[in-house]
Amino acid sequence: MDHTTQILLHLFIMLAAAKIMAEIFERLNQPAVVGEILAGIIIGPSLLNLVAPSEIINILAEVGVMFLLFNVGLETRPAAILKVGIRATVVAVLGVAIPFVCGWAIMLAWGAPTIEALFIGTSMVATSVGITVRVLSSMGVLDAPTSRIILGAAVIDDVLGLLVLSIVASTAEGNINYVDIIGTTVLALGFTVLIALVGDPLARRSTPHIENLRIKEPIYVVGVVICLGLAVVAADIGVSAIIGAFLAGMALSEATADHHGMHSRVNGVTEFLVPFFLVNVGMQVNLAALSSPSMITLALLITLIAVATKFIGCGLGSWGLGWQRMMQVGVGMAPRGEVGIVVAQLGLSLGVISDALYGVVIFMAVATTLIAPPFLRPLFASEPAAHGEIDTPDAGGIVATEELSRLG
Amino acid sequence: MDHTTQILLHLFIMLAAAKIMAEIFERLNQPAVVGEILAGIIIGPSLLNLVAPSEIINILAEVGVMFLLFNVGLETRPAAILKVGIRATVVAVLGVAIPFVCGWAIMLAWGAPTIEALFIGTSMVATSVGITVRVLSSMGVLDAPTSRIILGAAVIDDVLGLLVLSIVASTAEGNINYVDIIGTTVLALGFTVLIALVGDPLARRSTPHIENLRIKEPIYVVGVVICLGLAVVAADIGVSAIIGAFLAGMALSEATADHHGMHSRVNGVTEFLVPFFLVNVGMQVNLAALSSPSMITLALLITLIAVATKFIGCGLGSWGLGWQRMMQVGVGMAPRGEVGIVVAQLGLSLGVISDALYGVVIFMAVATTLIAPPFLRPLFASEPAAHGEIDTPDAGGIVATEELSRLG
Repeated sequence: MDHTTQILLHLFIMLAAAKIMAEIFERLNQPAVVGEILAGIIIGPSLLNLVAPSEIINILAEVGVMFLLFNVGLETRPAAILKVGIRATVVAVLGVAIPFVCGWAIMLAWGAPTIEALFIGTSMVATSVGITVRVLSSMGVLDAPTSRIILGAAVIDDVLGLLVLSIVASTAEGNINYVDIIGTTVLALGFTVLIALVGDPLARRSTPHIENLRIKEPIYVVGVVICLGLAVVAADIGVSAIIGAFLAGMALSEATADHHGMHSRVNGVTEFLVPFFLVNVGMQVNLAALSSPSMITLALLITLIAVATKFIGCGLGSWGLGWQRMMQVGVGMAPRGEVGIVVAQLGLSLGVISDALYGVVIFMAVATTLIAPPFLRPLFASEPAAHGEIDTPDAGGIVATEELSRLG
Repeated sequence: MDHTTQILLHLFIMLAAAKIMAEIFERLNQPAVVGEILAGIIIGPSLLNLVAPSEIINILAEVGVMFLLFNVGLETRPAAILKVGIRATVVAVLGVAIPFVCGWAIMLAWGAPTIEALFIGTSMVATSVGITVRVLSSMGVLDAPTSRIILGAAVIDDVLGLLVLSIVASTAEGNINYVDIIGTTVLALGFTVLIALVGDPLARRSTPHIENLRIKEPIYVVGVVICLGLAVVAADIGVSAIIGAFLAGMALSEATADHHGMHSRVNGVTEFLVPFFLVNVGMQVNLAALSSPSMITLALLITLIAVATKFIGCGLGSWGLGWQRMMQVGVGMAPRGEVGIVVAQLGLSLGVISDALYGVVIFMAVATTLIAPPFLRPLFASEPAAHGEIDTPDAGGIVATEELSRLG
């Protein structure tokens, strides 16, 4: 079997395993995402060792989660997010500060060196919005007011995470350049605000011209080019590529609202590629790293603190919305997923995190991702799932503005 | 810029360049595929050197052309292909034999060693069906009788190409195992015939069960899993992965005819990934290899012979259909594209083709691919483009059977 065929075989195994586990979990009334991540643990190096993480799988996973966020952006009117802006900022700030400080403190208490403790704290900072969004989208409650808060908070959370990571990483390297760090943060915030504000009017003005292009399916194709372009700019600035994809989708949401084919096309890519993202998260787990009782204890402790601090921080940030919505936000922000994994990988490559602790962080990142979805379902069950699936042609996507102003 | 961002940037450049060139070519009333391949030559190592071929791009290209053939398969009823079976076989056999013998002879006359001459002949054998299909599909004439002949002939041509390549490659390695070669060929033919015959009834019986699965979009997702699975089996046997994808699509064509969402989803992936396939073909060209006048002469000569022999061979195979249809088939089978490139790469890796001759074969593979599409348009202009685009929900895809029986 030649190399290309081998890779196609790996893709087949990943997709088939993901969908078998998704089906089993759906039948158990559990979220499909949990099944798909577990599929990654099962077929990955920890257990069956059928497929191992690779650069190609990473890229497919990245493109998959980009399309997922692009699709969510297409369903999100900028006005809906801007209305919850202040609330989302409070949720993001508390949801970053409390996990960071607690993670840092607990690792110092455990006896870890300062820099290692700082890295563990950093790995607890940023939410993996992809996981939550996948669950909310499959329940058809992306329009719920708290879903908007979670989306907005996840974007700000990503920028704050960049800030924390820049400071911690440059501390590890021994030279903190505050001018650079502030510059990057301002650039990241500026990019986000700029696209959020001018993207929509620009898209509305350009759409008639794009429709007149002679290429096949101009709206979809140009949309994908913009999505890729903004993802690259976002990643180059330092925020996640998926934030760029989300902003691209949001900028195009009003302009493409009447193009029913857009969603099913984006959805075709999403349904094909997102399983690779989820399986890839699961495949990162190395159960062998958790061989000693003390490491297992630490992994469980860190996971508990990661969930509790995000839950408390983001829950507090939603103060005044009532218990159920506070819990929706608190649980929705809990998954760390690929964001925590990326921080751990950076720490490992800088030589400030040991192999054993790397395994612990990966465990925390994946465990928080597995814990949250089963709670999201009952918490959002009472929200009106007006639109069923995200790609339903008649999906409107605009939340009653009076409700949003009350929340903002 | 980190490595992942770099790759995303390359994808952005490839997609944007492909679509700009496609738009320019459409405005010049020329086929978009030609523009997209030229985009690859322009941004590739030969000229601007913005992007170079890589394993990741190869995989994206391969998956893209797989989805393209899967989509075409979905529009192709097995009965429609079986009806033109004998005709397609004659076209394939003549279209393989004449280019092989002429390519071999001309290289011997040029003074090349026997084994090198055999490899050049082999590189002229197989048609890159993806290119032709892309043009026919964008014109909406995939249902035309000659389109069916081209599709059927391309499948058989691939199996024959496997046979020729096995013999030539094992001659180069110095041990010809006829039992192995015959075994592989029988396996390839058996696989093709088996899927063509039992795929459709099996799919029709399973569809109601698949529809009852709890996972999101079960028909699309299971369809993609089957497509990937058959592609892997086909590639492992030795035929192209895309033949497996085409057979998978054809097996599912009747069963999924009422699932309108299927096409737009598959199309979402196709429109996103096929440009990488086309740009990647263009990027293989190394203009520096054609620096000496004698190599330029040889490249032009080989290209001329490649076009002429395929045109004559496949045209003769269509004897009795009238001049226009003979020309439709003859031109439609001319592009060698990625199939010729793969043979050249194998020859290079076995050490039987020189670097200079490798450049010549790549030139031939890409040039035949650029020459054919502009002629396909006027040749097919009089065919009724009933369905516009392949993904139009109301596309029926069944050719008038009396017409087909006349052709078969």
